[in-house]
Amino acid sequence: MKLYDFIPAPNPARVRIFLAEKGVQILTEQVAIREGALQQEPFVTMNPMRTAPFLELDDGTVIAETMAICRYIEELNPTPPLFGRDAKERAVVEMWNRRLEMDAFAFLSLAARNSAPMFAGRVIAGMRSDHPQVPEMAARCREIVELFLPKLEARLTASAYVGGDVFTVADITGVFVIRSAKAQEMDLSACPSIERWFAEVSARPSMDA
Amino acid sequence: MKLYDFIPAPNPARVRIFLAEKGVQILTEQVAIREGALQQEPFVTMNPMRTAPFLELDDGTVIAETMAICRYIEELNPTPPLFGRDAKERAVVEMWNRRLEMDAFAFLSLAARNSAPMFAGRVIAGMRSDHPQVPEMAARCREIVELFLPKLEARLTASAYVGGDVFTVADITGVFVIRSAKAQEMDLSACPSIERWFAEVSARPSMDA
Repeated sequence: MKLYDFIPAPNPARVRIFLAEKGVQILTEQVAIREGALQQEPFVTMNPMRTAPFLELDDGTVIAETMAICRYIEELNPTPPLFGRDAKERAVVEMWNRRLEMDAFAFLSLAARNSAPMFAGRVIAGMRSDHPQVPEMAARCREIVELFLPKLEARLTASAYVGGDVFTVADITGVFVIRSAKAQEMDLSACPSIERWFAEVSARPSMDA
Repeated sequence: MKLYDFIPAPNPARVRIFLAEKGVQILTEQVAIREGALQQEPFVTMNPMRTAPFLELDDGTVIAETMAICRYIEELNPTPPLFGRDAKERAVVEMWNRRLEMDAFAFLSLAARNSAPMFAGRVIAGMRSDHPQVPEMAARCREIVELFLPKLEARLTASAYVGGDVFTVADITGVFVIRSAKAQEMDLSACPSIERWFAEVSARPSMDA
């Protein structure tokens, strides 16, 4: 089993942190993404979405997508449970993890790709192309995240962690939501519970992975 | 346990089809979304994202998010398995389900909300607001889906179903991707394998649920 990794990007970091929380080590190869390696074979066939991370199993099966990799690792290494301890907790963790991914992280990524100079020529994930950045899209994506943050604030006022009273994969996703929100200078002044939680989870040793 | 449902919308339909594939019946209540019910209590507290479907457990816990609901149903009713039969198959199903959701369905939804007259005033999911539709965003979202379709075509040329050789939850997601692509008059003329698969899965009795 080999993990194809790219240190600077957030999604590979989510997998590395997940592995660190599990205390699991996997053979890892850095992919030369900036040199275009994912646009060439063998990677195009291995992962047609041309994104990192992805996991190659010993039989050649490739598992891409951060959460698919994390779930597979969870199945092989159930302790500590990071997707919840029973059916109900797993459902709540999944609900919040999805909200964080689909109502926040995805829009933060779109906002960054459509506004930051470093993403010019890389506006669509997994592609190098001359698609122009769309400032109107970046602005709307920011608005959507601004509407989401009070909901996360309410959750973290009522709950120690995103998924409930223990640390789970939803907290890892949440850390990258807030890192990106801060990097994009979004206003968190009305979000003291998010800041309390973010400081606490950011101090975990796994976050250096 | 009660499912809060809204017949006309795609995400509640995904859950109903999942239940039909399982042969499971759940007490179901239709929510008067068009009359603004999700913007009022008790629903605002139950589901702050103000979207359907959501599932209320007997202890009052609310599980929102289509896939969180489906996973919970899978845990209570493991047969037939719709998320994969072993760890590797579950990882492949999850990978493809996420690609379908995050690289296609989410963008199709954004494209529709930012272009179709019926979504004026409801441009952001779960909200009624005066946010204007953003045509540039609709156009870019369509482009992203057009880039995804050949990848799905290649998968369904190599594989009977999205997740492999059996029907899974990824096929349910895929049906709604293609329904939405067709509703938005996207060009599928270069996608005969998608059309073959779509005709086959659309003929399943569950699809009327």
